[in-house]
Amino acid sequence: MPAFGPGDVVVARADRKSAPGTVSISSITGDGGRLSLDASDNCVGIAASATLALLPGVDCGVSLELHKGLPLGSGLGSSAASAAAAAAAVNALFGNRLTAEELVPAGLESEAAVSGRHADNIAPALMGGFVLVRGLDPVLDLQRLACPAADAIWFALVNPRFEAPTAKMRAALRKEVPMRELTANCAAGASLVAAILTGDVPLLGRSLNADVVVEPVRAPLIPGFAQVKRAALEAGAFGAAISGAGPTAVAVVPDPATGERVARAMSEAFLRHGGLETNSSQVVRLDSRGARQI
Amino acid sequence: MPAFGPGDVVVARADRKSAPGTVSISSITGDGGRLSLDASDNCVGIAASATLALLPGVDCGVSLELHKGLPLGSGLGSSAASAAAAAAAVNALFGNRLTAEELVPAGLESEAAVSGRHADNIAPALMGGFVLVRGLDPVLDLQRLACPAADAIWFALVNPRFEAPTAKMRAALRKEVPMRELTANCAAGASLVAAILTGDVPLLGRSLNADVVVEPVRAPLIPGFAQVKRAALEAGAFGAAISGAGPTAVAVVPDPATGERVARAMSEAFLRHGGLETNSSQVVRLDSRGARQI
Repeated sequence: MPAFGPGDVVVARADRKSAPGTVSISSITGDGGRLSLDASDNCVGIAASATLALLPGVDCGVSLELHKGLPLGSGLGSSAASAAAAAAAVNALFGNRLTAEELVPAGLESEAAVSGRHADNIAPALMGGFVLVRGLDPVLDLQRLACPAADAIWFALVNPRFEAPTAKMRAALRKEVPMRELTANCAAGASLVAAILTGDVPLLGRSLNADVVVEPVRAPLIPGFAQVKRAALEAGAFGAAISGAGPTAVAVVPDPATGERVARAMSEAFLRHGGLETNSSQVVRLDSRGARQI
Repeated sequence: MPAFGPGDVVVARADRKSAPGTVSISSITGDGGRLSLDASDNCVGIAASATLALLPGVDCGVSLELHKGLPLGSGLGSSAASAAAAAAAVNALFGNRLTAEELVPAGLESEAAVSGRHADNIAPALMGGFVLVRGLDPVLDLQRLACPAADAIWFALVNPRFEAPTAKMRAALRKEVPMRELTANCAAGASLVAAILTGDVPLLGRSLNADVVVEPVRAPLIPGFAQVKRAALEAGAFGAAISGAGPTAVAVVPDPATGERVARAMSEAFLRHGGLETNSSQVVRLDSRGARQI
């Protein structure tokens, strides 16, 4: 079992024939032909351009290859994975002059173009581990949260064969929420941070379960999700939730063996209660490093 | 300068002449005659009764004296201070069989009767330091947050001569809050917990400043508060806020000398911009111990 799950790989090459700042994409694999080769219309192209803009003195263009390892539209942060890989690859090509945190604004430009301006995925994809996004505008305010139990945090991920209606998923969120739900979710968020910083993995799971604002309105849009969650908890997960905007279900588990049991239980529940086959099922360890040169 | 600020003192005596579970109040000082001597109508009486109910085998009643050190209705958690003192005194009288955390439900009964069912004040008053209230119902779910910088956290407190209209203060809170404010306050709360657990005192102050839900609607009800806050920050506070439902202003400061400057600046601003005299002004250290036998 790999120490971390599948991811996206970007190969960046200096392109001496093109003008400084120019980015092109030579090939994409693993996307089923769904992504554009136009660099201005692809998250790797946008992230690479934005990274080049942060690197003064580069006197050539860049050519990229993208190998998708993450499924698109699964709620696993696929666009952020691509953007992080591109930013890190371009940074590496020109001497790793920027830190992971300094690359976040470049990745954020890409996220803004393809999936909305939010740092929730791109910041941890670049920096690794857990990152608290304290603020985005006017100042990007991030904090890497060190977790003393990082090596003991495992996730079971089950991606069902179901196109999550992203627009519907977003529209489901209410514009206003009752004050008592705000109080509950503030407590859940505070609890999650406490769990991370004290290395309390069971509490980390329980904190995910405590969301009363987002999951209750999105879960009904994913067939069988309520039963999938219950099955995960019964099989030994500390907590379970929708990954991103779904449809992937993620569970926090204490070890790989429990993870396999939980993943199986979630797959079965998706099939039995939602009529959904499983695209992919995996048990992965928390990745504390983020995007890296391989 | 004392290591901690003024507080309430409760003297508890076994009353062999009265029936088990009976609580009476023999005297109250420091309240200006405002509090009731009827034990069922006073937070010390209610907390003492509830504590007795948690102590099986006590074969007599209890008589209480209350010496108020905290001003009433100031936003300093005066009722919780009394309740915590009463619960701890009764517990001590019968052999300290309960932990501070086990006393919280007794204090909570008192809070429910006099100022609404909430553990925000009573839990830290009993347990000391910072306590995250994760849940209240159906299960009281508390977490003591250890702070590596506890001894370096000081507060400047200025209580202006102004009756904060509690009903108005509560009514000011909206029943529904925009989602973006929920996001901001979740980030602020998460940030506060991160600041506590990592011992980042400046961040603790900034996190207080980041509230966009409660303070913006309550501050306008306290004359001059906006200028008081600005004055505190200009005088070197890391952050400043309304203490509880007000009218006391609290600032987080790095040391007692800065605290004195900040307290003076806040007092002056209350007078100049709000026309309010200062009742009391103090600089106190975080109390990590909570209610104790003296």
